[in-house]
Amino acid sequence: MNSFGHSFRFTSFGESHGAAIGGVLDGVPAGLSIDLDLIRRELDRRAGRTGSVGHASSSRAKNETDEVEWLSGVMDGKSLGTPIAFIVRNQDARPEDYEWLRTHYRAGHADWVYQKKYGIRDWRGGGRASARETVSRVIAGCIAKQLLALRGIRIQAQVTQVGTETDPTRWEKLLEEVRSAGDSIGGVVTCTITGVPVGVGEPIFDKLSSHLAYAMMTINGCKGFDLGSGFQDLAKRGSELYHPIDNLETLELPASGGIDGGISNGDIISFRCAFKPTATIAQLYKGRHDICIAFRAAAVVEAMAAITLINEKL
Amino acid sequence: MNSFGHSFRFTSFGESHGAAIGGVLDGVPAGLSIDLDLIRRELDRRAGRTGSVGHASSSRAKNETDEVEWLSGVMDGKSLGTPIAFIVRNQDARPEDYEWLRTHYRAGHADWVYQKKYGIRDWRGGGRASARETVSRVIAGCIAKQLLALRGIRIQAQVTQVGTETDPTRWEKLLEEVRSAGDSIGGVVTCTITGVPVGVGEPIFDKLSSHLAYAMMTINGCKGFDLGSGFQDLAKRGSELYHPIDNLETLELPASGGIDGGISNGDIISFRCAFKPTATIAQLYKGRHDICIAFRAAAVVEAMAAITLINEKL
Amino acid sequence: MNSFGHSFRFTSFGESHGAAIGGVLDGVPAGLSIDLDLIRRELDRRAGRTGSVGHASSSRAKNETDEVEWLSGVMDGKSLGTPIAFIVRNQDARPEDYEWLRTHYRAGHADWVYQKKYGIRDWRGGGRASARETVSRVIAGCIAKQLLALRGIRIQAQVTQVGTETDPTRWEKLLEEVRSAGDSIGGVVTCTITGVPVGVGEPIFDKLSSHLAYAMMTINGCKGFDLGSGFQDLAKRGSELYHPIDNLETLELPASGGIDGGISNGDIISFRCAFKPTATIAQLYKGRHDICIAFRAAAVVEAMAAITLINEKL
Amino acid sequence: MNSFGHSFRFTSFGESHGAAIGGVLDGVPAGLSIDLDLIRRELDRRAGRTGSVGHASSSRAKNETDEVEWLSGVMDGKSLGTPIAFIVRNQDARPEDYEWLRTHYRAGHADWVYQKKYGIRDWRGGGRASARETVSRVIAGCIAKQLLALRGIRIQAQVTQVGTETDPTRWEKLLEEVRSAGDSIGGVVTCTITGVPVGVGEPIFDKLSSHLAYAMMTINGCKGFDLGSGFQDLAKRGSELYHPIDNLETLELPASGGIDGGISNGDIISFRCAFKPTATIAQLYKGRHDICIAFRAAAVVEAMAAITLINEKL
Repeated sequence: MNSFGHSFRFTSFGESHGAAIGGVLDGVPAGLSIDLDLIRRELDRRAGRTGSVGHASSSRAKNETDEVEWLSGVMDGKSLGTPIAFIVRNQDARPEDYEWLRTHYRAGHADWVYQKKYGIRDWRGGGRASARETVSRVIAGCIAKQLLALRGIRIQAQVTQVGTETDPTRWEKLLEEVRSAGDSIGGVVTCTITGVPVGVGEPIFDKLSSHLAYAMMTINGCKGFDLGSGFQDLAKRGSELYHPIDNLETLELPASGGIDGGISNGDIISFRCAFKPTATIAQLYKGRHDICIAFRAAAVVEAMAAITLINEKL
Repeated sequence: MNSFGHSFRFTSFGESHGAAIGGVLDGVPAGLSIDLDLIRRELDRRAGRTGSVGHASSSRAKNETDEVEWLSGVMDGKSLGTPIAFIVRNQDARPEDYEWLRTHYRAGHADWVYQKKYGIRDWRGGGRASARETVSRVIAGCIAKQLLALRGIRIQAQVTQVGTETDPTRWEKLLEEVRSAGDSIGGVVTCTITGVPVGVGEPIFDKLSSHLAYAMMTINGCKGFDLGSGFQDLAKRGSELYHPIDNLETLELPASGGIDGGISNGDIISFRCAFKPTATIAQLYKGRHDICIAFRAAAVVEAMAAITLINEKL
Repeated sequence: MNSFGHSFRFTSFGESHGAAIGGVLDGVPAGLSIDLDLIRRELDRRAGRTGSVGHASSSRAKNETDEVEWLSGVMDGKSLGTPIAFIVRNQDARPEDYEWLRTHYRAGHADWVYQKKYGIRDWRGGGRASARETVSRVIAGCIAKQLLALRGIRIQAQVTQVGTETDPTRWEKLLEEVRSAGDSIGGVVTCTITGVPVGVGEPIFDKLSSHLAYAMMTINGCKGFDLGSGFQDLAKRGSELYHPIDNLETLELPASGGIDGGISNGDIISFRCAFKPTATIAQLYKGRHDICIAFRAAAVVEAMAAITLINEKL
Repeated sequence: MNSFGHSFRFTSFGESHGAAIGGVLDGVPAGLSIDLDLIRRELDRRAGRTGSVGHASSSRAKNETDEVEWLSGVMDGKSLGTPIAFIVRNQDARPEDYEWLRTHYRAGHADWVYQKKYGIRDWRGGGRASARETVSRVIAGCIAKQLLALRGIRIQAQVTQVGTETDPTRWEKLLEEVRSAGDSIGGVVTCTITGVPVGVGEPIFDKLSSHLAYAMMTINGCKGFDLGSGFQDLAKRGSELYHPIDNLETLELPASGGIDGGISNGDIISFRCAFKPTATIAQLYKGRHDICIAFRAAAVVEAMAAITLINEKL
């Protein structure tokens, strides 16, 4: 329910306005020097504390600080092989912003279903359903990335589409227009993974592609996933996508997204995630709102891809 | 690896040209009268032995017969609560059709990655990677559907797009054109689920949407999944998709696809699966080929949706 | 690895001399008022801060204090249905007591195998292998007990044997003799569970008895488990243990320990755990040592039995 | 429920008087030549078709034949890396022997709890609860043993106690006496495992000792498990069991049974299983009965130990 993975199991906990959010990482091998700089950079990226165009769309990020406290599993900066527990204390100067949520539900948010499911909810700022939960994912993802880097595997995710616009030079103006209208807009994050050897993933149910789809769809606001010739290549015929295999040792199959029959084929893995427009829009709700969550989500996509991959038999 | 689900666990086995394909169903409650007619109908649908437009595109289906043999877990037609094992013997009159696969690999197929992963493969007709494996899924899915029907939950999947064409009246001509060219074409299957109560699914990792995405991406040829405002609504703004919640007891949120924050909101659940064009095309390979696998896949989409749902806490 | 259970999943973390030990509880239903008094009492019992004969054997307990800090999943004293994370900060006034462990290994302890397995270890006071880890188990167990009590299920564990002595009136003298000799002694804890309905447990692999055995054998120092006619009734013949079932609605089967074929039969469940003599004995190692760990272990046996049962389909 | 293990997952199915019993093995690496002779020998041993003293006590075994049919996962005698499914058809010439079980329940058997749990049961010869289910375990265990042998690991289990008698030369007379009285007697099976490297098992919950206890307690009639100084060494003091570690590279710790803190220490692993007297005794029930099930169970203990070990990270 709040755990992800088996050999590298990440358990997430915390409400956005409780004492702390945090996580437990089980299965990190002993002897790893935790890269605290990487974690800080990725937390800043997730929070929109960097200067890129999309991040500029978020006003809320500047006030957040994310100080990681390590509770176990690390001694003198090195992993012990035992579970690594970490927390980030919550600080919010304006709890009164959320007081109205005690009695209101926001469309497109999980407020209402939480209340129906549990009969109780932490209404303060989204509670468990808040995007703040992804702080823990990013920290876990950084440690997974370190382990993947040791195997030569690298992951990169970035926004490739804002609304239907795929030309980045046109995004700034588009986002400004959306903001002015007190509105929000969806986007697509594309993630590429290099260095994955041939043969990763299982052929029937534990397909690598299935694991990636599962992981991406756990990210708040992600409503779609495809790879290779997914939704984007429906205009193409089979003859355009597939060519006879001449050389048995190498494959060049852009149509596969790097995965055939659920198993990595040695090619670059590339998949897309569709993010919906932010449900909380300025026209309806006061407060701080992201215009396009895809920008901040890119760091989370990378983190979840890393946690997914490190759980595979590499 | 070859098991799916926990409370209703389906284990699949079998190669397309081995002795049999089959499955084991663990967690079926005692006392269920297995609906053999439903199973026969769905197996015919999966095999393309029905007369609809898309199915007509498959010539291979007519020769297949799928006789289910029940090995355990059923006595006098009723489930015992113990594991239900079933097999379908394989019959193929033309093994020589596949002889060339001993030494060849087909683009877009799993032949090559199997060989690299295992160092050995059953080359006869795709072996374990053959779509024949979905016979077992359809049988398991029928039993899951029976259990869901007892709770008032119904699932329906059908092709809604062939290539980029969403108007069904134009499909027959399009498919004929593709066939004449010895080519293949992709498609989209849309699945709707009615009767799911509010509150199904977990909020962080075991989201209902994540489970569905995982399940669909395990189907051969499925390269994409979305629900609600996924890839299809990227042109829309937040203000077009979300409206304030006035009535606390009912939600009308087409943008959500029936799932908010991973939890069912009581609305009809609706999601799409993108199927790639068949990789084995007549231009390149002789033998029997499907023009558009989405048609036969619809039965498998339903089956996997059923197996996914019955594993949720309903 | 450091998680136990599925529907009520307990994840444990922490080294005895790290920042904190703690746990995450996933699957606690919403709306439960956490019984902090019960937790305090059981932590005192585990620590030997109560006055009973066996506990008097432990001198180390008096110095420990266990202040529980709740990080998530609880609001206004009630569970939210989200993961409950808690920590207990470690305090040890005498780290120098353990300095020698940097370079030494204790027989019967996990020091040596940790070093070989991980190539690194937290040598301070046993680190992860310290019995201090059971603080987290006891806290988790108390919440499980609360949930079980709502179903009328109660668990009680106590020492029933010290060495080979089953008469409690003779224990005090025996323990004093062992202490004077700078030695240690084993013991047996017997646990009884009342109120479990008929039908709990699965018949083949997920037997209730198997789950209990697994859970008990995870407790430090527990080297044996039996129930019903286990090791203790080997002198008896079948005719002494079994009688024909006359009354179909009730069973009286002391030989079964309340479980037949892995499934609860409605009778009181009763099992035994054998604890080895403390490996760290005063003859060999200076410092504070328990004479007979069974006394403090009884609280842990109860906790693990509770966590095991609440994971069953009740 | 009917699956065991993760990386080498064994799923068992079948009722004793249904069409077949069988299993599915998921995770067997590709390229293994299945040792059919080993399987035949072990099935004979399980069935009591060998001439040893204890086996002579079973008259039922002679009539059974166990022909294994391989359905998938094997081609030309070699494993494909895909799930291996196998069945053994049931044959029983005397179903009328069990007719009375339609309306009767046997003490110490699972008949009654099955009926209460499921509301239905296959009453023919014990159905799913019959010891015949262990045929599948023995087959799975043989394949696990082959994989373990490749790593130099060997497992051997044998009866070491009949009732309270540990001297094998006195067993024949004792068993004859029990048989004449129409009675039954319990026994102890001791299992030793050699060749397990240091470091196998996890330190907190997934202890190797916990996994072994779980596995053994899934065997019909097994009511107790211990290792090292379990129930048998309760008379000994700590000073008799533990000695200072002088040589850091080797450990000699008979008290540990080869496992310290849940992790293998490189020593021979040795554990005991207590089997209860057969519940179905000739005084009460006509038909064929084992006098002491421990003899036939030894093959199952070996099988389950093998399946347990091959699931560890070796």
